[in-house]
Amino acid sequence: MGHLLDATAKGMYAISATPFTDAGAIDWASMESLIEFYLQCGVSGLTILGMMGEAQKLSDEESAEFTRRYLRYVDGRVPVIVGVSNAGTANLVKLSKTAMDAGACGVMIAPLVGLKTETQIVGYFGDVIAALGDKVPVVYQDYPQSTQADISAQGFLKIADAYPSVVMFKHEDCPGLKKLSQLRKACDGKSRRYISILVGNGGLYVPQELRRGADGVMTGFAYPEMLATVCSLFQAGQSEQAEDLFDIYLPLLRHEQQPGFGLAVRKEILRRRGAMRSAAVRAPGPKLDADDIKELDQLLARLETRLAQRGEPRRRAVA
Amino acid sequence: MGHLLDATAKGMYAISATPFTDAGAIDWASMESLIEFYLQCGVSGLTILGMMGEAQKLSDEESAEFTRRYLRYVDGRVPVIVGVSNAGTANLVKLSKTAMDAGACGVMIAPLVGLKTETQIVGYFGDVIAALGDKVPVVYQDYPQSTQADISAQGFLKIADAYPSVVMFKHEDCPGLKKLSQLRKACDGKSRRYISILVGNGGLYVPQELRRGADGVMTGFAYPEMLATVCSLFQAGQSEQAEDLFDIYLPLLRHEQQPGFGLAVRKEILRRRGAMRSAAVRAPGPKLDADDIKELDQLLARLETRLAQRGEPRRRAVA
Amino acid sequence: MGHLLDATAKGMYAISATPFTDAGAIDWASMESLIEFYLQCGVSGLTILGMMGEAQKLSDEESAEFTRRYLRYVDGRVPVIVGVSNAGTANLVKLSKTAMDAGACGVMIAPLVGLKTETQIVGYFGDVIAALGDKVPVVYQDYPQSTQADISAQGFLKIADAYPSVVMFKHEDCPGLKKLSQLRKACDGKSRRYISILVGNGGLYVPQELRRGADGVMTGFAYPEMLATVCSLFQAGQSEQAEDLFDIYLPLLRHEQQPGFGLAVRKEILRRRGAMRSAAVRAPGPKLDADDIKELDQLLARLETRLAQRGEPRRRAVA
Amino acid sequence: MGHLLDATAKGMYAISATPFTDAGAIDWASMESLIEFYLQCGVSGLTILGMMGEAQKLSDEESAEFTRRYLRYVDGRVPVIVGVSNAGTANLVKLSKTAMDAGACGVMIAPLVGLKTETQIVGYFGDVIAALGDKVPVVYQDYPQSTQADISAQGFLKIADAYPSVVMFKHEDCPGLKKLSQLRKACDGKSRRYISILVGNGGLYVPQELRRGADGVMTGFAYPEMLATVCSLFQAGQSEQAEDLFDIYLPLLRHEQQPGFGLAVRKEILRRRGAMRSAAVRAPGPKLDADDIKELDQLLARLETRLAQRGEPRRRAVA
Repeated sequence: MGHLLDATAKGMYAISATPFTDAGAIDWASMESLIEFYLQCGVSGLTILGMMGEAQKLSDEESAEFTRRYLRYVDGRVPVIVGVSNAGTANLVKLSKTAMDAGACGVMIAPLVGLKTETQIVGYFGDVIAALGDKVPVVYQDYPQSTQADISAQGFLKIADAYPSVVMFKHEDCPGLKKLSQLRKACDGKSRRYISILVGNGGLYVPQELRRGADGVMTGFAYPEMLATVCSLFQAGQSEQAEDLFDIYLPLLRHEQQPGFGLAVRKEILRRRGAMRSAAVRAPGPKLDADDIKELDQLLARLETRLAQRGEPRRRAVA
Repeated sequence: MGHLLDATAKGMYAISATPFTDAGAIDWASMESLIEFYLQCGVSGLTILGMMGEAQKLSDEESAEFTRRYLRYVDGRVPVIVGVSNAGTANLVKLSKTAMDAGACGVMIAPLVGLKTETQIVGYFGDVIAALGDKVPVVYQDYPQSTQADISAQGFLKIADAYPSVVMFKHEDCPGLKKLSQLRKACDGKSRRYISILVGNGGLYVPQELRRGADGVMTGFAYPEMLATVCSLFQAGQSEQAEDLFDIYLPLLRHEQQPGFGLAVRKEILRRRGAMRSAAVRAPGPKLDADDIKELDQLLARLETRLAQRGEPRRRAVA
Repeated sequence: MGHLLDATAKGMYAISATPFTDAGAIDWASMESLIEFYLQCGVSGLTILGMMGEAQKLSDEESAEFTRRYLRYVDGRVPVIVGVSNAGTANLVKLSKTAMDAGACGVMIAPLVGLKTETQIVGYFGDVIAALGDKVPVVYQDYPQSTQADISAQGFLKIADAYPSVVMFKHEDCPGLKKLSQLRKACDGKSRRYISILVGNGGLYVPQELRRGADGVMTGFAYPEMLATVCSLFQAGQSEQAEDLFDIYLPLLRHEQQPGFGLAVRKEILRRRGAMRSAAVRAPGPKLDADDIKELDQLLARLETRLAQRGEPRRRAVA
Repeated sequence: MGHLLDATAKGMYAISATPFTDAGAIDWASMESLIEFYLQCGVSGLTILGMMGEAQKLSDEESAEFTRRYLRYVDGRVPVIVGVSNAGTANLVKLSKTAMDAGACGVMIAPLVGLKTETQIVGYFGDVIAALGDKVPVVYQDYPQSTQADISAQGFLKIADAYPSVVMFKHEDCPGLKKLSQLRKACDGKSRRYISILVGNGGLYVPQELRRGADGVMTGFAYPEMLATVCSLFQAGQSEQAEDLFDIYLPLLRHEQQPGFGLAVRKEILRRRGAMRSAAVRAPGPKLDADDIKELDQLLARLETRLAQRGEPRRRAVA
């Protein structure tokens, strides 16, 4: 087991794509180039098998092998969180064990689709953590747009108070700014232990969320270097400069953030940037048509122009 | 203001249909005959403007007038609860005032569609009761199949503990037997004040629910006399006889309980029984076609046969 | 490959439970006794890995092995349908191949959660059948309460017209009687090819559905012999006798039909009847508490009494 | 009746807020100042009683009076569309008549919550238009995030082909760019009659949508002059300049677009700009706390800075 995740985690955690060949197999060579890409972008950590990582379309065997190979290739250079949400608790525990044995720093778990009340969600996490053991660091993934399992700040605090192994809150409710502030004030390290809060929603509200006390970002935006820099600038007290940089990318980020469709955009950009060889999304999944490609070309050209106006180097490729 | 609802409420509360003419206007004469019908059936109380009462298809003015005329005609013979759920709190309060001024015993309120957590539901009831005043008896309508606003027993207890004017829990979650037992044990009049629990779901689980401690039934089944008798037999300790009677009607009750469609069946039976002149449902709403009518004929014929086998009088008409 | 499913399929297809040991492993011995139980009950066919079969809590490997062993043990005595719904089309195809190679008669596929329009559902089935090949008989599983993917009769007819390998419609919409009649009239073997329609919803509306032209039932009710007999009586023109028999079991059937909770009831009855050794449901899943057990005891005692009144032999055990 | 809406409608249609006093009554003076504000912003049209107009929290009487007063004050200076969606068809028709009699150019109707298939939606519009008469111009409001009633391009074309009075498609699905392109290509005025398409989603994707052929925007963004200019620039072929302008406002627009919460932001900005006297939202509704106000101050300050950098006049107030 490698370094374990704790509540001091901060910065940009990239949610890694899962690269496929055009034929749909996992592209192991691209997995390696993608990892190099993320590391060159300066990410603080990586998350695999997230919802945007098409985890639900991998077989159990592929999930396990992808986890093992990914961790071996990263080789401790940054911490890696593994998404392990599963309809069956036994399967969730099994993949968690595979992940932790391979060197993951922790696992990310969303409340199960079908949980209808906060009381049920708290009970579910109790059962899961009992099965998982209290040594495995857990990220609570709050993504009700996908799970329909909503929790309030007060509801999460029950989990935080009962289960010390829950060290991070992946914030992805929308609108969710008020909840973020409530959680930050409640988990401040004084009246209650500190919890790391990383935000998602494709990064759409990052400057506002960092101002409200988020510790960083966890999302799959195809220009992770921007979000890494924004996090660093914020930590250095240069929030206005951070937001200036963010706003340059906002038109593209907003475009990529469209649920479902955005995954195809994201993979196409990663391909163009040389991070992986194919933009293929496994079926069923979105595909870009000619209109989509033309639109993306325009958005990327506008981004280049804006970056050039700022005197920034071209960002298209990393290498 | 007439007699006020309190936690001793029990027995069969019929959810009243709203009778329309074939042209769609409220049929005031049928309102009166329907009330007489319910009273002859031996109901303990009545509920108007429920979801099955097509409340959402009445204009504000119709709702107010229906409430006033209904209460005037009932004239205190049984307590009447008025459904007042509304997207706007001010409108909810206004209709509640109309209802209480006209002699209602209390109002029934469901959590608003769009409330996503128990914390939000508890907050909503706090706001509503603050606006309503603490003198108006409130029935909490727990019908998540329609509202998507789910609450656990623990969540409702927060409302019960904070707001003494909430005196009844209209139980309509499904599956919901466990929640019913939890609430009954928690609100037992000893460790916590007693709350009246009336059950819905079209009556589908009545014997099981009464055995678990429900105080009665609130539903719109077109043979309310059966449910009234079942409640009485249970109170008299004759639960097996009660369940024997219930089971005779179960095939029809199950048929009528189908959400949406059931309203058309129910109104047709009420029409056949002479309780109202037209089975019309306001648009948009279900209509019975020839297949549906034939099916209903068969179910009613089978019911008659079974009642005759038991030596019961024919139940088709009440007069 | 064994005998293939076609549109002449009729009668009672039992949705098989997946038996586990108390420790949560698949109980292979109970799988065999359960198969014997179903066969003694006179079922026309079997369906495995359905939603009630806890398929989503099996690992890929367990699903494949359960499929192979189940089919080997059945050994062609009745046709077996395998549920293969999966978030990834490649995984769906892989399990289908495993199933057909092992001797399944066809596969059952539900539209994916997240499909929002009939147009998307029709497109999804086109993609899946293209990947599956047109030689694999397909059952369309219409269960919108679980999938939120609703289709009208007209929508399904587009699939029926485009893809001849779709030979059965598993009807489980509710209320769904009108849709059933529409489909039966449209797929009558004259104006359009015949499609087999088996009904679900725990069997709650079986007599009405058979009268409307359903070819049979596919559900997991723990007394499959009753539904098999009801189907036979209907085929023999003795619909009133069939409905008389059905109504005796209706109180229990209605109890078992409660979504989620019903699985625990069902497995407990199967255990009591000697069909399997443990009623264990994999986590997360419902468990029966003392109230639930007492309630079940009462319902079963009442059933026994009614059967005895009819002069029927005791049904508790099959052996 | 005034000028009627037809398929040539284009440009920026502002969805009007409904101004309330702090005590919650409709603020008639602010209604007038708000109308003047919108007209000074150069809007092409106005929409009242939309979802963002808190229509569901008005009483029937308020809705009718607001409609009449609003139209009288606008006095034909721009066309006004009235949102008339209602759970009851009779009420929908009644408000439509009030609106058209008062001089509205057309009505906007969303498919009812609870419609589950495209077939049902098409049927619903048929019934509604039959009741409404074919002389009233209809805007189809496609907002599935709120109605859960999804329609594909193909589904809408059935409505367009059957009901010539449907002249506009209010596009608010998300992701919805592909559907927009499909509709634009299908309703091109050659192979099929032209339909006006105005886009919503708070304006989040406006440049991309105009490039794909949208005719304009219908949303409630608190700087409608920007969207009006963007539409004009696009029409003049200056799409890059339009997008440059749009991108300046994007950080604020994205902030205001948050569902639910955004209404409070929007009303506060309108108040600051002098368009109305109070930012009050009727209960239940969002309220801005100190964190929210500070955040909004920062976003507005950044907007001012950016506009100043472009040499644009200060936009805070209009007058």
